[in-house]
Amino acid sequence: MTAVITAFERSPDGGRGLARDTRIRWALEEAGQAYEVRLVSFAAMKEPAHLALHPFGQIPTYEDDGLALFETGAVVLHIAERHGVLLPEDAAGRARAISWMFAALNTVEPPILEREMATYMERDRRWHAERLPLLEDRIRDRLDRLSARLGEADWLDGAFSAGDLMMASVLLRLKSSGLLEAFPNLAAYLARAEARPAYQRAFAAQLAVFNGAGA
Amino acid sequence: MTAVITAFERSPDGGRGLARDTRIRWALEEAGQAYEVRLVSFAAMKEPAHLALHPFGQIPTYEDDGLALFETGAVVLHIAERHGVLLPEDAAGRARAISWMFAALNTVEPPILEREMATYMERDRRWHAERLPLLEDRIRDRLDRLSARLGEADWLDGAFSAGDLMMASVLLRLKSSGLLEAFPNLAAYLARAEARPAYQRAFAAQLAVFNGAGA
Repeated sequence: MTAVITAFERSPDGGRGLARDTRIRWALEEAGQAYEVRLVSFAAMKEPAHLALHPFGQIPTYEDDGLALFETGAVVLHIAERHGVLLPEDAAGRARAISWMFAALNTVEPPILEREMATYMERDRRWHAERLPLLEDRIRDRLDRLSARLGEADWLDGAFSAGDLMMASVLLRLKSSGLLEAFPNLAAYLARAEARPAYQRAFAAQLAVFNGAGA
Repeated sequence: MTAVITAFERSPDGGRGLARDTRIRWALEEAGQAYEVRLVSFAAMKEPAHLALHPFGQIPTYEDDGLALFETGAVVLHIAERHGVLLPEDAAGRARAISWMFAALNTVEPPILEREMATYMERDRRWHAERLPLLEDRIRDRLDRLSARLGEADWLDGAFSAGDLMMASVLLRLKSSGLLEAFPNLAAYLARAEARPAYQRAFAAQLAVFNGAGA
């Protein structure tokens, strides 16, 4: 059965691939799995039919064979396990890759999202200019540690994993911020991730939606 | 082999159980597993020996049988899988419980932590009083949805799971905020979680550390 995911009818990021459906598309492409996309409007995301799939009224959702999931971390983990991709075969390596998935989502992404939210929602507040450097310091702290750990390696722990997929997806949010430039190994890590054919296909597919070429 | 976790030598929460080692202690107690605790100072957390275990220089860490993990989400998932607890046996139920773990950590916790950080770090800034209601609105949005989904059920999806353990751990951060009171079913959900003997043991163990009774 073909998996069905949901995505923004019109993504607020302008097709830059930052909406979270890109992460699921990427994982499915890494697994060589076809999928269908159902587009939802902002209004429809708050309707009971969508809330039944996603309790917090967001995208993406994932449906496959009677299973309905939300949260990209859980969906990417499910795809990895179901299709035998993106996770090492040994139990210890698998557990470490999952550590990196949670690190991306719970340790690295929150300060990055805070900066994004401040830029969108507090830009006109009188405190924004003074607060922005504080937010960027919090991001730099995380990048500093991540850069030190990555060192000269290609990926965070051996072969490319679901942990790298998620970490790269989070770092993509910083592309226009200028913050990555101080960490050349992280910029190169991100470029390696973006160069993967599976990412390229996922990015093109979400851009096609934004450009009106359909799901 | 007995698992070894790390915890704050002196937790900044004053023994209220909000440091993240409590989550791991709780999961280990649910699994009926003894564990050892190694206390680390703030200075030691930034030293190479600890950074080798936790790339971001935080607690807790988890070591067991040669495996070293960080990120509470990954550790709780590992404990659940290793000891056959806190996850439904059917694959679909298991995947949904993992969705709730990620929802707790990536959707519900970030706005709660933002409010906490603002209260600690921006209390003296001239914008704090004006910004706090914005932060609380973001939290209420999440609680609104969570409350609607929980309804009259005891737990989020069937029996108590790792998803509930993580969601309750996140909601615990709101206990002194006054924000939970508007959602009686969430307050009752949290009280049910706190009443679990495994949580009680975990809470008592971390409090004993704070009170100087050792790990």
